Amino acid sequence: WHSNKFLNPVRDGAVLPILHLNGYKIANPTVLARIPQEELESLMVGYGYKPYWVEGSDPETMHQLMAATMDAAIGEIKAIQEKARTEGYTDRPQWPMIVMKTPKGWTGPKEVDGKKTEGSWRSHQVPLAQMASKPGHVQLLEDWMKSYKPEELFDDKGKLIPELAELAPKGDRRMGANPHANGGLLLRDLKMPEFADYAVDVQKPGTEMAEATRVCGRFLRDVMKLNQENANFRVVGPDETASNRLDALFEVTSREWMAQTLPEDDHLFTPDGRVMEVLSEHLCQGWLEGYLLTGRHGFFSCYEAFIHIIDSMFNQHAKWLKTTREIPWRRPIASLNYLLTSHVWRQDHNGFSHQDPGFIDHVMNKKAEVVRIYLPPDANTLLSVTDHCLRSRNYVNVIIAGKQPALQYLDMDAAIKHCTTGVGIWEWASNDKGGEPDVVMACAGDVPTLETLAAVDILRRDYPELKVRVVNVVDLMTLQPTSEHPHGLSDRDFDALFTKDKPVIFAFHGYPWLIHRLTYRRTNHSNIHVRGYKEEGTTTTPFDMVVMNDLDRFHLVGDVFDRVPKLSSAAAYGKQAMRDKLIEHRQYITKHGDDMPEIRNWKWPHGGAVASDAPKETKDPEVTGDQGVRSGAPG
Amino acid sequence: WHSNKFLNPVRDGAVLPILHLNGYKIANPTVLARIPQEELESLMVGYGYKPYWVEGSDPETMHQLMAATMDAAIGEIKAIQEKARTEGYTDRPQWPMIVMKTPKGWTGPKEVDGKKTEGSWRSHQVPLAQMASKPGHVQLLEDWMKSYKPEELFDDKGKLIPELAELAPKGDRRMGANPHANGGLLLRDLKMPEFADYAVDVQKPGTEMAEATRVCGRFLRDVMKLNQENANFRVVGPDETASNRLDALFEVTSREWMAQTLPEDDHLFTPDGRVMEVLSEHLCQGWLEGYLLTGRHGFFSCYEAFIHIIDSMFNQHAKWLKTTREIPWRRPIASLNYLLTSHVWRQDHNGFSHQDPGFIDHVMNKKAEVVRIYLPPDANTLLSVTDHCLRSRNYVNVIIAGKQPALQYLDMDAAIKHCTTGVGIWEWASNDKGGEPDVVMACAGDVPTLETLAAVDILRRDYPELKVRVVNVVDLMTLQPTSEHPHGLSDRDFDALFTKDKPVIFAFHGYPWLIHRLTYRRTNHSNIHVRGYKEEGTTTTPFDMVVMNDLDRFHLVGDVFDRVPKLSSAAAYGKQAMRDKLIEHRQYITKHGDDMPEIRNWKWPHGGAVASDAPKETKDPEVTGDQGVRSGAPG
Repeated sequence: WHSNKFLNPVRDGAVLPILHLNGYKIANPTVLARIPQEELESLMVGYGYKPYWVEGSDPETMHQLMAATMDAAIGEIKAIQEKARTEGYTDRPQWPMIVMKTPKGWTGPKEVDGKKTEGSWRSHQVPLAQMASKPGHVQLLEDWMKSYKPEELFDDKGKLIPELAELAPKGDRRMGANPHANGGLLLRDLKMPEFADYAVDVQKPGTEMAEATRVCGRFLRDVMKLNQENANFRVVGPDETASNRLDALFEVTSREWMAQTLPEDDHLFTPDGRVMEVLSEHLCQGWLEGYLLTGRHGFFSCYEAFIHIIDSMFNQHAKWLKTTREIPWRRPIASLNYLLTSHVWRQDHNGFSHQDPGFIDHVMNKKAEVVRIYLPPDANTLLSVTDHCLRSRNYVNVIIAGKQPALQYLDMDAAIKHCTTGVGIWEWASNDKGGEPDVVMACAGDVPTLETLAAVDILRRDYPELKVRVVNVVDLMTLQPTSEHPHGLSDRDFDALFTKDKPVIFAFHGYPWLIHRLTYRRTNHSNIHVRGYKEEGTTTTPFDMVVMNDLDRFHLVGDVFDRVPKLSSAAAYGKQAMRDKLIEHRQYITKHGDDMPEIRNWKWPHGGAVASDAPKETKDPEVTGDQGVRSGAPG
Repeated sequence: WHSNKFLNPVRDGAVLPILHLNGYKIANPTVLARIPQEELESLMVGYGYKPYWVEGSDPETMHQLMAATMDAAIGEIKAIQEKARTEGYTDRPQWPMIVMKTPKGWTGPKEVDGKKTEGSWRSHQVPLAQMASKPGHVQLLEDWMKSYKPEELFDDKGKLIPELAELAPKGDRRMGANPHANGGLLLRDLKMPEFADYAVDVQKPGTEMAEATRVCGRFLRDVMKLNQENANFRVVGPDETASNRLDALFEVTSREWMAQTLPEDDHLFTPDGRVMEVLSEHLCQGWLEGYLLTGRHGFFSCYEAFIHIIDSMFNQHAKWLKTTREIPWRRPIASLNYLLTSHVWRQDHNGFSHQDPGFIDHVMNKKAEVVRIYLPPDANTLLSVTDHCLRSRNYVNVIIAGKQPALQYLDMDAAIKHCTTGVGIWEWASNDKGGEPDVVMACAGDVPTLETLAAVDILRRDYPELKVRVVNVVDLMTLQPTSEHPHGLSDRDFDALFTKDKPVIFAFHGYPWLIHRLTYRRTNHSNIHVRGYKEEGTTTTPFDMVVMNDLDRFHLVGDVFDRVPKLSSAAAYGKQAMRDKLIEHRQYITKHGDDMPEIRNWKWPHGGAVASDAPKETKDPEVTGDQGVRSGAPG
């Protein structure tokens, strides 16, 4: 109801809400039907509407009354729009709405078995059941059906008579044929800037810092700018565009805002802004779904934990996408793109209530052909993934990336190759080239990638004879078999990356069992050991968050000791050293309230060029027009 | 805001809502702060409240004004209650509420770096940052802190001066010590009827029909009745108590309803009903959480697909339960009990949008010590599970059971034994006793159990030499290792039930991968083949729903052919026969719109006593006071 504070009469369409107050739900009265009329009137006025009442039960009278009221309301909407479009926007208008009060089950059987049916919740049920055993019900049904006088509506072949058929609108004016109801017909490609132009310069991997979402924000700014004329791109979110570091957007647009402004408000709230912020994830989701379904493009940024608020709405949209693919005349629409940031690992300041990476699992339950999940480990990979998602059609894309200053690993050339494949060996971090590794250190997500590299640093420093392979996963779907997901690696490719029999220590952004679920059919599955979020957390330091969940570098090194036979003689001392580090950490944060300098300031010390060593694997040809993360290609 | 339509001044407590209208969120104005005062006034009146306004920025004046307004509002609440309690309830009162309008960041720094801070969204941020590089900020901070005159508040040892300390309430009147804030202190055990008295009579397994939730409803009716005097049990749900066949409750209570009633309303809507129905899963969840947290008991019945609406609220409650267990002075509260019915397999009439068994997966992501999931296959097992859940503490219990007429398998004695163990062999359905089975047919959930038994019927009829074991799972947690969940079977017990190397065909109620997730550490995991919901469905027949997801008897028999070496010579003909059956099914439903009589009327034809053959396994001793599903024991 409060969406009208975000609707611009100069440029936007309009909605005429009709509250059909028919009194009952499936078994109860409705709340709004049982409050006094003046209270309901107040409620609608409080929502910012001017209510019109259409009330009665005589069909003939009601049809006329409703038609007249519709005409009045639509006239009023047109007058509001015309005034705003000629004189310019001044104040938020009081839009009309209609309260239509009729009996429930109107014109149905009045009574069945002596019980009131029309005007009662009973008409929400099967009004006439037990037809075989109650002939009286058959008679009631016949009377009811005949009350619509079919003999006046259809000819003797059962065809609607021409005078009535003529009344229906023609062509695109038919409700189901309106192009806005098949938004793909109206869809225009976004004009896309060259995303590689926004690259962070990475000379040596793991040595320089950037805020991934801030970099992404500059790219989104220019997407916004290039499409401003077409007015077909919007960013939505619950009051977090700036907090999520996407504020470069405000260099070219503002937040849409039709409610009152104050003199001290800056330029960030205007009637024609293209960023939609409201502290209701439900509204954000609803707005964006409507926007996409009518042929436009959008991007939803949200705190990771709170996206669960729209789980149920996501379900319905994913089901719609699955079904729409089976209907040939439905044209593809733009994907629903989520950027989940302020994620579980950096909610050390907000605490346990803000820590929940489970939306990934929720999304994974929907049809493989409509869902995509990306975990870019740094800014350049985030750029590549974002570009890809904005170009895609008929998917739900979930991107998870942090907003905090973090180490950068791949230059743009390496990032494109890595994201195109979706998974690959980081050669500069590995030392197993030319032989078999002793252990595969796998990671997905920015913080797990950091901890994995820091663990590998310890291993390479203290156990140089150990052969370590680092595999990073950007596109989570690559882990599944090809038969389960179009992005899935072939078993041959999977075995090549993860080996057939070596221990794999997998540091994962989310709940650990998801990795098992994705890989349980793979050859080496029984050797995959996963660390992830296990529902431990509080307000603490960033590093302590990973420690509480055994995902930190020291636990990961300990896991390697537990699983690599070659290290068994060193294991006792090695594991003790790691345990000591964890005790040192605990003591330090208790005293200083911040992480140890060796943690805070850790950088990758082993050098390595980043651009030349992208993995050679390429995926099998894609199914159903899916283009993988193959960005940089012309739109 | 609409909860006041369900609040009875005669008996219930009251809430004094205070809308703190401080203008901004983290980066934006709030909607309600930027609509005209008369519009906001209308909104509150429309919600059924009488608003009081407290507005200003001078602390001294505001404190007096707020105190006076609080006194007035509380006086009004007391007057409403007194009138209702002496004269009886007549009309829904207009309860008071307060709109408190103050600057955001009130009494904080007025300006920082030339930018308005008090009275702006900037005070939602860190108002003074970069303390090291900006000495001016340190001065601002000092001025700000000193503005509260600490020298007048604390003595020279830093202790609050006695005159002020004296102002705080004492004992239970302190906010944090109020027993309602530690509801376990107030918790009284429910008086429980003997659940076995409600048993359905089952002479021969799989031959008689009953509606499981209707049977459960009779039990809940008497729970309600026995505790009416203590007034500490409520059932909540979105308008589905009757639709979910729990309407026996209305023999002893009604739906609470304080809004208008009409002469034709029956007795089901009264001010003192103990069933709370509103078509908002959010409200149901919120009410029940509050009710449990303040020391009472409750039961939430909901359509399975739509419980996702409260995913995010469930998360927070589960996190609260996890944390509360770590706080010694917090006393256990009653568990949050969900009955999910109208489930995925019987939404053939409502269609794809109503089909979603994913809440199980969502719940499974939370701490093992607080979550429990039960899939009773028939009425007597549902009774046993429900009794157990109502007696438990500090859990979230999810029970999934159908409401449609369905075959009954276990008499009460067998049901108690089966539920106590949580998982077991159904000896009457198996023919492998005294040897190793060729195949284990496992099932969890009522519809998968039916299909499994029907598949076993085909196998036993056509391949009598095949040794089949039927294992039914009621308590999903038994599948996990003991190390992961207190209900988990030991590996020894698991191997005994599911064998170490025989094929297991597992028919599961939910998404199939959950079974892999739960069992991936088990010896025989690589032989477990799971069928479940794979996001296929539409409006069709009940049996076609399972066919679309390959969970039907014919697919299950086909799976046996694919995996049992002994049947390899028969496989070609056998699989073709199953395929033919599926084609026959398709043709029949297309023509008749209903399932084939052999499907609709199928019964278990092999006889067998049910009471004497409960499995012999018992679980390892339980952890942390958990009692498993050991019902019938005295409360």
